[in-house]
Parts: sequence; structure tokens; C-alpha cells
Amino acid sequence: MIVVTQKEASREIISEALNLLNQRGLEARAVAWKNQTLLVTHRNPASADMDQLKKTGIIERLVHPTLKAQLASREFQTETSVVKVRNASIGAGKLVIIAGPCSVEGREQLLGVARVAKQVGASMLRGGVFKPRTSPYEFQGLGEAGLRFLAEAREETGLPVITEVLEPEKVDLVSKYADMLQIGARNMQNFSLLKAVGKSKTPILLKRGMMATIDEWLQAAEYILLEGNPDVVLCERGIRTFEKATRNTLDLTAVPVLRKQTHLPILVDPSHATGSRDLVAPMAKAAVTAGADGLMIEIHPSPETALSDPHQQLDLKEFASLMEELEPVARAVGRQLR
Amino acid sequence: MIVVTQKEASREIISEALNLLNQRGLEARAVAWKNQTLLVTHRNPASADMDQLKKTGIIERLVHPTLKAQLASREFQTETSVVKVRNASIGAGKLVIIAGPCSVEGREQLLGVARVAKQVGASMLRGGVFKPRTSPYEFQGLGEAGLRFLAEAREETGLPVITEVLEPEKVDLVSKYADMLQIGARNMQNFSLLKAVGKSKTPILLKRGMMATIDEWLQAAEYILLEGNPDVVLCERGIRTFEKATRNTLDLTAVPVLRKQTHLPILVDPSHATGSRDLVAPMAKAAVTAGADGLMIEIHPSPETALSDPHQQLDLKEFASLMEELEPVARAVGRQLR
Amino acid sequence: MIVVTQKEASREIISEALNLLNQRGLEARAVAWKNQTLLVTHRNPASADMDQLKKTGIIERLVHPTLKAQLASREFQTETSVVKVRNASIGAGKLVIIAGPCSVEGREQLLGVARVAKQVGASMLRGGVFKPRTSPYEFQGLGEAGLRFLAEAREETGLPVITEVLEPEKVDLVSKYADMLQIGARNMQNFSLLKAVGKSKTPILLKRGMMATIDEWLQAAEYILLEGNPDVVLCERGIRTFEKATRNTLDLTAVPVLRKQTHLPILVDPSHATGSRDLVAPMAKAAVTAGADGLMIEIHPSPETALSDPHQQLDLKEFASLMEELEPVARAVGRQLR
Amino acid sequence: MIVVTQKEASREIISEALNLLNQRGLEARAVAWKNQTLLVTHRNPASADMDQLKKTGIIERLVHPTLKAQLASREFQTETSVVKVRNASIGAGKLVIIAGPCSVEGREQLLGVARVAKQVGASMLRGGVFKPRTSPYEFQGLGEAGLRFLAEAREETGLPVITEVLEPEKVDLVSKYADMLQIGARNMQNFSLLKAVGKSKTPILLKRGMMATIDEWLQAAEYILLEGNPDVVLCERGIRTFEKATRNTLDLTAVPVLRKQTHLPILVDPSHATGSRDLVAPMAKAAVTAGADGLMIEIHPSPETALSDPHQQLDLKEFASLMEELEPVARAVGRQLR
Repeated sequence: MIVVTQKEASREIISEALNLLNQRGLEARAVAWKNQTLLVTHRNPASADMDQLKKTGIIERLVHPTLKAQLASREFQTETSVVKVRNASIGAGKLVIIAGPCSVEGREQLLGVARVAKQVGASMLRGGVFKPRTSPYEFQGLGEAGLRFLAEAREETGLPVITEVLEPEKVDLVSKYADMLQIGARNMQNFSLLKAVGKSKTPILLKRGMMATIDEWLQAAEYILLEGNPDVVLCERGIRTFEKATRNTLDLTAVPVLRKQTHLPILVDPSHATGSRDLVAPMAKAAVTAGADGLMIEIHPSPETALSDPHQQLDLKEFASLMEELEPVARAVGRQLR
Repeated sequence: MIVVTQKEASREIISEALNLLNQRGLEARAVAWKNQTLLVTHRNPASADMDQLKKTGIIERLVHPTLKAQLASREFQTETSVVKVRNASIGAGKLVIIAGPCSVEGREQLLGVARVAKQVGASMLRGGVFKPRTSPYEFQGLGEAGLRFLAEAREETGLPVITEVLEPEKVDLVSKYADMLQIGARNMQNFSLLKAVGKSKTPILLKRGMMATIDEWLQAAEYILLEGNPDVVLCERGIRTFEKATRNTLDLTAVPVLRKQTHLPILVDPSHATGSRDLVAPMAKAAVTAGADGLMIEIHPSPETALSDPHQQLDLKEFASLMEELEPVARAVGRQLR
Repeated sequence: MIVVTQKEASREIISEALNLLNQRGLEARAVAWKNQTLLVTHRNPASADMDQLKKTGIIERLVHPTLKAQLASREFQTETSVVKVRNASIGAGKLVIIAGPCSVEGREQLLGVARVAKQVGASMLRGGVFKPRTSPYEFQGLGEAGLRFLAEAREETGLPVITEVLEPEKVDLVSKYADMLQIGARNMQNFSLLKAVGKSKTPILLKRGMMATIDEWLQAAEYILLEGNPDVVLCERGIRTFEKATRNTLDLTAVPVLRKQTHLPILVDPSHATGSRDLVAPMAKAAVTAGADGLMIEIHPSPETALSDPHQQLDLKEFASLMEELEPVARAVGRQLR
Repeated sequence: MIVVTQKEASREIISEALNLLNQRGLEARAVAWKNQTLLVTHRNPASADMDQLKKTGIIERLVHPTLKAQLASREFQTETSVVKVRNASIGAGKLVIIAGPCSVEGREQLLGVARVAKQVGASMLRGGVFKPRTSPYEFQGLGEAGLRFLAEAREETGLPVITEVLEPEKVDLVSKYADMLQIGARNMQNFSLLKAVGKSKTPILLKRGMMATIDEWLQAAEYILLEGNPDVVLCERGIRTFEKATRNTLDLTAVPVLRKQTHLPILVDPSHATGSRDLVAPMAKAAVTAGADGLMIEIHPSPETALSDPHQQLDLKEFASLMEELEPVARAVGRQLR
């Protein structure tokens, strides 16, 4: 149950109402949500409890979501959220294309990519600086130096930047440079990290775990929302299946499934999902048709020499072509691209 | 290796060449392919053997496909096959929409569906009469009576009809009524059945097994092709994964993967893949954008009363709307719908 | 619902009762079950219908299984079935070890294997003669010649023989030679084949499909049982997952899960499950500990030269060692091996 | 490549050798390994580089593992590691049974469990105090209070204790109380956490991620080993598949697969793998037969009231029975239990 309290309700009276609920064993918590306070519990109050609660006079609205991820549910918020990342707005109708290299490898590489991305119509710049790699022997990213390059690329191009954060104690550092924090697939159920980014004010891109159900994914988002950060965007990036012709199996149907269940905006990452450069364009277009609010695409000035994911990054010309091809597809489903 | 023999080569000389290859242990077989004969072997002949073979003078072209499914490979045939099913052509550029009920339940039901399908622009009519059901207690289909209804619906609407065949000894019977035979997901590796339909002259729709890799699927198609039936169309219908929010996981990326590897046309069945009526439209559109040559969609006059798959069949109005929405999507990727 | 009719009930009265049920729309069928007749329906009769039925006086026992696979359920039969295959008894307490080559490759190969199998304590001989192969270019088996070798091996060693049947029209032929028919993983939902072997009097080994849930597997068994063949044995042989270190993922937990749900005996095939010779022995032993009624193990005089599955077949010495090691394991869980 | 340096080699000369390797672009690192130093690189040095290295005179042994997880490989260490956790030794031949509640729920609950565990022959006590839960609304554990109960239970029973750690900054705190740290399935690829526990001196139990291949799992272990903590134990706990009859699919074959590839000891957790109380005993026994070095089993004084995982915890009597049944099974495969 979510109790949306009235904006004018005083701290004291809200705190009293919270105590009331908790004395009845409802394990409620107060969540600062935009300019209001929510009281949230996963238990069903008895009608006597509800009567008491109503008497406090703080209730603006009561919601009883059936979805376990209550704050993420459309039952709580019917219209799709718009997540603002500086000058970009995810979920607002216009497609948001996030482009950039898998890893930030150096200043020149990143600036070169950023300029092209800007020029052909991307809305945001991505680039990994803390890289979660299967093997400890693989390139682990440039760290803080990479963050500075991202900030510089933003200065020059005006593109908001997003990068992955791997541990709670790095959330502040990364937030200083980045406009959006990515939680990667492997960390989708790193609950300490989810709580940490939930406490920040920076928007979050939450990638789907490669073996996570849609239900678990929404509950992972709920960890962030419950800490008071409403700016969560979901990103489908393929799940692990028996099929090995592609790196992962892109579960595009997740887009319309999520659309019904949640108000959170939904992106698709065809680069990680397919793992193969020549599959990115068709699946990017299909993702838009399936209803995604945008795409995250890996691009690199010379993919074959990339320090990570060399097979799946588009070169800059391929990306420019893809943007051309996306235009009519976006229009066909009533979306704007640039 | 595939030896394409010259059209004018005599039976005798081809038979001699075949013997020659087999004396060398190459386990070759002769395949009647359109108006030519192919000699096909999966072994690498020694150069001395090749010299002998060349001396026969029958070679028009030699192909050494790297794909295990040699006849299905683009290395053997570079242009996409066009499979003609009466007045419908699958793979020719114009999208082919196959619509109809999961099961033929009666004459009126089928005729009603067929008329609407025709009217809103479908190219073919589907309807199951021999139903492979998980439980022996479930509705098993109308059998031959259903075949007669299909034929009647074709007479009236002009739509070619497709239905599933479950066993080798029914291939002749079903071919008498149907214009295209469907091999269902559960029978994708029913090799006796594949050989039997390979011997028929009727075009075949080969659905992907729910746990089949793309590689295995193409090898299943090869079973049919090797018997001399070149008219095989592939149909992606979702694979089985851990995710239970949808009936299966639609592997749309299989479409561009297949496109590179094979010349066989590719359809997508969003009804079985998603198992849910309201997911059919977005995934149908996404399938077209991903490059499919057409769609197979289950429709029913009153889905909730259907004897099988009640949750995934569109009603006739929903199907008409989908056809409207597909139009601009098809155009956006350079395809024609109606 | 299963109506067990009294042994002395006449055909006429049973037929009347069946009609009665069907007039009420219960879609019941009569099943000849050992020396009795069952009336089976998946619908719930109204109490008025039950009253009518009781008046016929034919009811010996009424069962209302909750499992969809009613005849396979322990609710219908509480004690584990014992399936007799000539002198072997599967499910009777003593472990049944079925050994033999993946494919029958010739007379000498088979007889050599059979003698060793017999000598070290195997209870049955296996050998494939109709082989379902992923590729049409792979060895497809010796066919009827192989059946004759199997019969000869039985004559000499006294071991009952089992081999796979691939299509309904071969059931009679294979039954003429073999003592037990195997339905392979790929055919677990080949319902025509299931019905055909259900009509035969030969015991059936039903392998689990690589994509099949336990629930679907039991319903496949139900197809056979419903035709009146009570002699069905289940065989776990690994399922398909994302893990590629082994050929399949052996789902040993299926053994105790099945034990609770069904009275059918359960074997395990560690050869196909693991796909690797050195994994067969540990998993064979684990299978016995998990409660299997026996094992099916592939053995070959010189595995590296085998025409199919060269990596997973034990050589004869390895098999003899395994039998030695199995002895104390069997004893530890209260089973007898030889 | 792993360079095992001589025990008497000075810090200076090792540091020189490291520089030498890195000047050649080998990205080597020095690892303090027991009482020696290793120089580890994933690159292949040129023979000139090797000549230089040999001249330093520090090489005791050179290893060129083919496994990506070099330090975890049997090529580096041929005998199975023995990981000492106070008075318990994992990998030494005697089975190690770790028992305890899913979550520490209170002092009395834990002490009660600990006494019985000790009495019936368990070697270690488990209990979660920081709980990674799918939903933020579920019980998250007692935190540090729970750690104190664990320490008290150890004082009283002498059983070493293990508990899960969820974030790098809690490693020191948890190590103060616990004798072994568990990395849970969801954190198997939380590389920050792996590095953090790699820097501690406490032994680590690394559970397999539910989506992890054996190969990825070993590389996760390598993250810990490379930081100089050699005391890593692997724990199979089931993988995620399409089958829903069990909570996960226990991949028991992983035990012999790992045995060949790695020297790290291997435990099995049948509680999480099966998710069902009555499946724990058969799979515990099967795990021992498959070659596991021990088991981790969830037990609870009254499972049905447990705050987490109520369905899979054994009650204390069931656990005592299981220990009885394990005895002959352990003996049958040459293992000692108590």
C-alpha cells in the first residue's frame, strides 16, 4: 500500500502516521517522492488501522498496487515517467539515442566519438571507465581519468554523459562527473549498490541482469525508488539462453510487457544483446518499433582495435547510417528521432 | 560440396559420376533440384577424385559451403528464395501475412475468419486440424473434416491454406487439401516427418523448435531440401528460456542472423512467441522491422471461447487494426504490405 | 477422474457407463488397464452424474488425481510400477543397468559388447539402429540389419534388448526384434508416435525431451498409458541450458521429484547428459544415490572410432570398473546391483 | 604465465623482474601466495623476454596454464587445496557439513540450531545476517547484532561460522566475527567485492552465480586469488533454467568438471538448488557421491515460521536423519563424515 500524503502535511504529523502504521506491525517507511512524502508498506492494514490513518487527515491518495514493485507500478503512476538528464528527456516521446564507446580508452578517442555522436543526432554520450570484466586479466577501465574525459566531452558537445558505477563508495565520485549512472547487468541485484544510487540525486539507468526475470528487474528498480530517487530508466540488453549464435538473446517483448506494468521509461541496448556489429542496426530499428523510448548503442572510431567488445561496436559511419535509417522507422510508430 | 550438374547432362552420366564419388567413399547423393540434378556430399574429395569428376564434363558449378546445412546456405544460392504458394509468394519483397485460427473448430468459424482475413489484406489462411497438444486430454483437432473446411474457405476467398501435419503417413492426405504444410515446433527434429515432406511437392513451413539453435534449425531444413523439395520457409516462434512473463521468448535477432546464412525466406509468429493478445501487435511490427518476410498470426472470431490458445488469438477487429498499423511500418523498411 | 471398474463388469455395462459419461459431456474414454477397464475423464462430473454412475454398480474404485497425468500419478497407483522386460524387472528394487553402443555398427561390434556387458553384470543391451541425427549427412543407422544383430546378441547372451523407434509405421517391425522400445528425447512430444507405442504390448522407455519440463514429460507418458500400455519407464538424460561445459545439464533432482509424483520407474542416462566419458562414472553413481531405478550407459569396444557419440561412450574396461564402483554405492542406499 | 619465484628471492630482485616484464608490455603483477611471490601475466612473453627473466635467477618454477583462471587451475597446483577454517579443513578428504539457518533470526534460534548441528556432527555453522533479497520489502537480516550471535554460537559449540558479506566496506566488520565469508550467487561477479575479500585473510566460500558458466565462475575465483587470498572454496547451488519444478536446477556434474580443472575444494548446497525440503536429502547424498568435499545445508528449528526460505530448510530432526543416511554413502565413495 502507498499512502500519498498531502503536500501541506507537516513532518510531525507524517511521522506520527508512520509510527501509527508501524505500531500495527505494518513495517512502513516514509519515502521522499518529488515534492511529497509517501508512506509505503507491503502489508495489508486492517480496516481499524485504516480508520485511524484516515483520521490523521494526511491522505491525499491511497494506492494498492498488485505489482510487487509498488512504486514502479503503473497502478501508482499512470503516465510514463519523464526522466530528465540535463537537456535530454527520456520517456517524453522523442527517442533518446545514447551512443559512445564501450570503454573510454583515451581523450582523443572519446572526443572524436562525441563530436560525431552529437553531429548525427545522438542525445547522450556513454563510455565505461570502471569496467566489470569476466576475467581479472582484462582491461579494467581508465578510472577517474576517464571520468574527466567524459566531463570534457560534455563541455565541448553539450551531450549529457552516462557511465557505469560498480560500488557504493564510488557513487559520489562518479556523480560528480556523470549526468546519469549506469547499473550494469551483473549488478542488477547488487542491493547495496542499488540503495546507494537510490540515495543520490543522479538519474539511474538500470540494465537488466542477464538471467533476471522482468519481475525481479522491477523489484531491483524498486530498491532505488524506495530510497527516494524517482529517476530510474530500464534498459533491456539481452538475456542468457541456450542459443549461442548471438552474445545474448534480445528479449524485445520485454518492452511491451514492461510498458503495461511500469511507468518507468525503457531503453534497449542492441549492442550487448547481439554482440555482433551487423546485427545492431536491424535490432535497433526493431526495438523502436516495439515501443522503446530510446537506444544505447556502442560506437568506436575503429572497433577492431577496441580494448573491449571489439565485435559489437559500430564505427562512426555505420552509426551515421543507422541514424538515417531510424528516422522513417521512428516516424512510422509516431516517434520523433532528432 | 555441392556439384551443380549441367541441365543437359544425361541420367546415365550423372549416375556414373555419383558412383565415382561413392567409390571414393564420399557418401554422395543425387538431389533433384528444380530442373537440375545436384550431387551432394559432406566429405572433402581428394584432388585426384576431383580431377576424375571434372573429366565427366557434367559440372556446371561447384560449391563448397562452410555452413553444415549446405543446400540451405547462401553460399549455395545467393539470392533469397521465393516460395510460391498458389497466388502468394513468400520472400519476394511483399510481406506475406498468414492469418487464421489456432484450431479449425467448425465450418462457420473458419469461413467467418477467412472472409475477414481476405478483406483486410491477409495473403494466406491458417488453421490447425491435427493438433499436437501437451496433454492427451486436450482438444486434438477436427482431423480430415477440418481439412475440408480449409479447402472450402480457399474456394470462397482465394486464400491459399496452410495446416500442420504430424506424421509421415498423413503427408499425402494433408497435401490433397492444403497448399502449404506446417511442421510444428515439436516436430522440428522429427526426421522421418522431415524426409516425408521433403519427398512431397508441397511447400513447407518449418517452425523453429522451442529449444533449437539456429544451427540445428537449418540442419532440419536441410533434411527437407536434400529430398528435393526446395520450397522451405522458416518460421521463428519463440524459444524456451527462464523468463515466464511470456509464453516463449521471441528471438527476433534470429531474423537477421538467418538472413546472412540462408536463402530461405523467414516468417515470424508473434502469437505463439508471446502467448498474449496485447503483445502480438508490437512484436508483429518489430518483426517486420527486423526484416521478416511475413507473419503468421492467430485470429479468432471470439478468442475467449477458443478450443486452444484462447489468450493469444486476436479478434477480427484487432487483426484489422494491426493490418492498418503495419502499413507504415512496412513502408519504413521498404516493404509492401497489401 | 479415473473410474476403476470391477473385474467382473461386463463389456456391455461398461460401455453403457461410458455412454452415460459422454452424454453428460465428460469426454470419457475406456482404457484397458492390465486385467481391468478404466473409464478416464479430465472433467469433473456433476454430483447427479456421479449418482447415475454409481447406480451402474461397476465402480470398484474412484480416483481424482490432482496431477494432470492422471494414470501416471501416484494418486492412481501408490506403489512404484515394476516393468518386466523379459527376465529384467525395472522398478523392483534391484538396479537395472542397460549398456551398449550408441549405434549398432556391425555384428562383431555388437556381439563383443554384449558379451562383456553380460559378463560384468548388465541387465539389458542397448543399441541404436534408426538414429535421429541433427544433420542429414551423419550416419543414420543400420536399420533392419541392426535389428537382426540385436536379436542375435540376445540369443547368445540372454540380455533383453532395447532400441529406438522413430516413426509410427516402424513400431511393429521394431517390436518384432526388440524387447523394449525407446522413445528418444527429440520424439518425447511426437504424439503420433506415443499413441502408436501405446497401442503395442512392448514396454517403452520414454526419454525426457531436452526442452521438456517434468510436467510435460509426465503428460507425454500419459499419451502412452491412455492407449492401454502400462509398461512405461522414464529416463532422465539431461536438459538444455546455457552451460556448455557439458553436452546437456543432467537434472538429477528430477529423480526425487518424479518419485513423489509418479509410480513409473525412473532411469538415468549419464552418457547423453554429460557427453563426456570421464563424467559418466561420477554421475552414474550420483544417479543411483539420488534414487534412480537403473542406468542406461553407452559402451563401445573402441569409442574413439565410433560412428556416433565418440566422446561419451565408455570402453569395455571402463564399464567393468564402473560396475565395480557402483556396487558399494548401491548397497549404501539399500539397492542391489547384481 | 605464472612465475613462481624462489622463497629466498629478495623483494628488490622480484620487483626488478616485475618491471622487466612490464617494460615488455606483459602487464604482469606480483601476487603474495602463501610464503612465496608469484609473477602473473596473461600474455605470452617473447623468448628474448624469457631469457632476460631467467637471468635474474629468481625462477623456481614456470607454469603456463591453458585455463584462463590461471591460479585456480590444476595446471598451477596439482593437489586439491585444503582450506582451513579454524578447526575445519575443507578439501582434506573428510566431508565438511556446514549447517545453519538461512537467516539468523535471534539469539535463541541460532544457539538452538548450533547445538544440534554440533551434536549430530556438522563441522561449521552458517547463518545469514545481511540478506540479499529480491524485494526491498522482504526481511533484510539482523546486521551486526546477528554477527554477535554467530560469534556467541561459535564460543559455545566450537563450530567455525560462515556468513555472507554484501559489500566491500563491510568485509572488515564481518571478518571480525566470522571465520569464513560467503560471496552469494548474486554477487559472484561483483568484482569490487571479490577484490575486497581477496585482500582479506579470511577464507572465502564463492557460490556459483545462477547465470554463471563454470568458466566464468573460475574466473571470479581468480579475482580473489590474484589479490593474494588462496583460501577459496567453490559452492554449487543450482543454475537457472526453464524447469520450474525446482527452485533452481542443481548442476551436480559441475563437481567432476571442476575437479579436473581446478585445485579449489568444492561444496554443494542442495537447499538453494532444490528449494524444497524433501529434495534436500537425496540431493545431498548424490552430491557426496558425485565427489563434493562437503555440503551446505539450511536447517531451522521450525522451518514453516522462518523469515526467509521457509520451504527449503530442514528441521533439526530431519537434519539428524540426513547425517545418519550420509554416513554409509560417504563410506561407499571412500569419504569420512564424522
